[in-house]
Amino acid sequence: MEEKQTEISSLGEFGLIDRLTEGVELCNASSLKGVGDDCAVLEYKDTEVLVSTDMLVEGIHFDLTYVPLKHLGYKAAVVNFSDIYAMNGHPRQITVSLAVSKRFTVEHMEALYSGIRLACEIYGVDLVGGDTTSSRSGLVISVTCIGDAPKERIAYRSGAKNTDLICVSGDLGSAYMGLQLLEREKVASAGQKDFQPQFQGKEYLVERQLKPEARRDVIENLEKAGIVPTSMMDISDGLSSELLHICKASGVGCRVYEDRIPIDYQTALMAEELNMNLVTAAMNGGEDYELLFTVPLHAHDEIKKIPGVRVIGHITDAGLGCAMITRDGNEMEIRAQGWNPLAE
Amino acid sequence: MEEKQTEISSLGEFGLIDRLTEGVELCNASSLKGVGDDCAVLEYKDTEVLVSTDMLVEGIHFDLTYVPLKHLGYKAAVVNFSDIYAMNGHPRQITVSLAVSKRFTVEHMEALYSGIRLACEIYGVDLVGGDTTSSRSGLVISVTCIGDAPKERIAYRSGAKNTDLICVSGDLGSAYMGLQLLEREKVASAGQKDFQPQFQGKEYLVERQLKPEARRDVIENLEKAGIVPTSMMDISDGLSSELLHICKASGVGCRVYEDRIPIDYQTALMAEELNMNLVTAAMNGGEDYELLFTVPLHAHDEIKKIPGVRVIGHITDAGLGCAMITRDGNEMEIRAQGWNPLAE
Repeated sequence: MEEKQTEISSLGEFGLIDRLTEGVELCNASSLKGVGDDCAVLEYKDTEVLVSTDMLVEGIHFDLTYVPLKHLGYKAAVVNFSDIYAMNGHPRQITVSLAVSKRFTVEHMEALYSGIRLACEIYGVDLVGGDTTSSRSGLVISVTCIGDAPKERIAYRSGAKNTDLICVSGDLGSAYMGLQLLEREKVASAGQKDFQPQFQGKEYLVERQLKPEARRDVIENLEKAGIVPTSMMDISDGLSSELLHICKASGVGCRVYEDRIPIDYQTALMAEELNMNLVTAAMNGGEDYELLFTVPLHAHDEIKKIPGVRVIGHITDAGLGCAMITRDGNEMEIRAQGWNPLAE
Repeated sequence: MEEKQTEISSLGEFGLIDRLTEGVELCNASSLKGVGDDCAVLEYKDTEVLVSTDMLVEGIHFDLTYVPLKHLGYKAAVVNFSDIYAMNGHPRQITVSLAVSKRFTVEHMEALYSGIRLACEIYGVDLVGGDTTSSRSGLVISVTCIGDAPKERIAYRSGAKNTDLICVSGDLGSAYMGLQLLEREKVASAGQKDFQPQFQGKEYLVERQLKPEARRDVIENLEKAGIVPTSMMDISDGLSSELLHICKASGVGCRVYEDRIPIDYQTALMAEELNMNLVTAAMNGGEDYELLFTVPLHAHDEIKKIPGVRVIGHITDAGLGCAMITRDGNEMEIRAQGWNPLAE
């Protein structure tokens, strides 16, 4: 049975916003006033303010054939939280702007918002504003996230120093493999009614692609351990691309070890099944939303105690360039092969 | 001669961002770090932080047949500044996210950015971040503006009180008439080569539509006069719609006088030429980006001294509803007929 679908135009812009933000409560002390005026009003007396923004476009960043709207909302919020964590801060507020075409109903928007609101609830972030309008075709989501960090704890890309340890959280390449799997099943399903996609044993990959998490736990554990990373980024375009960003911004080089790159078992199996190079997928896959950061050498023992964090190499002089040491001991120059959203 | 056009994909995302933000300098003390990291870093120790966001979609909010990209960039920035002024604050930073289809070149993006950067320069705002990606069709611009205001000066929609004076800056309906004019000339030009649109004597209307300004001067003059509005909004959807917002949020009613609604001479001529109701255009036209605000009765003499501000009526008890007193002394209930971006 089809669920009831309500045309958005029947509610109007303000009616829709009222419905989508009904019952939204503010949980952060810095959120003085949320949705319902010309601006949100925030208060940040003792910390710096971090601002990050991301735009997701249907047909470019997501495919609604296999991405449920609730997951999309969750992901749109979480990837922005990840940018704030990547500065060693905490996300506190988001604004959400949407452009929607006529094929979307009020119920679709509610599904999208339920994901956004779930992410906000889990990560302790307030939804404080936004804009909702029409588009001629497809769905566009623009999220801006505001967060905070004490000045002395902010981790820029530019602070990595010679001999610093290079650390990565979680594992890499799984979101990319999840995407390959989803695309494969989409092709297989074309034209078939009642098609059942084959995800058994690969649930982790699908989840990493559709419903990524941001690494708040790592930020909290770094804080508890009294460690301030000398540099940090989140891995959205792929480890290679982000390593080069940090090295360029910091004026340094790096060595990472192939056998230290964290890769999940399911990712490895999937790469084999698809006959793809596993290390290439892990280095360049993107959308991992894990943290890449550097710490001084003396933090080694403390870093080893943080769950899910692995040391994958070290920073060198700029003159040595950026290279990976392969399993057989060769040096391979690191090149950015990350996804280019403008080459689509 | 056609100017040189460069494909965006030839630069890539980071190359394009470098080119568009080349030479951007930060002028506000609150802007610690702009473009080039995961987040912008801001510092707001002594004031509240205001955040506003707006999305503009090609084919819905603008028509590139007659809107030059530089003007579009200028307008996209200014309408966000206007939201911050509407809280009685000052805009300090913006982030700009773009989704662009393949028909746009690097030179197009430079034209758009030149307008954004000009607006930032004129209003003293820093461009601190953004996102640039592809779209399947058309151009989408999402701007988030961050500003500040001392807590005791913030003007919400909800503070209007019985007997307060209702004030409006500038004149109303001219941007709407400019849009009608542009649409008329677009229709007239269809299929004609070397068509010359007829704008003589109507330049003001075209400028109000294509290149609106935000009323920083009014905010500065209110401050100098020591007046804090009891409520304030900017007029983007039309005076009727905004009056109803303020009255609803404040739990009050209002009376405004038809003969006090500020209307420019060119607007009146154009309405006659197009056989449109002038007061309807002024009350419901939208996109004026003027300020609507209320002040206590005792501020009357001070308000009269502020250039470009006119008292158009007063706040009443909620029980009296919202009405306009027509020239012939009748009461006409105010209804929102503002533009609904979701009914397109």
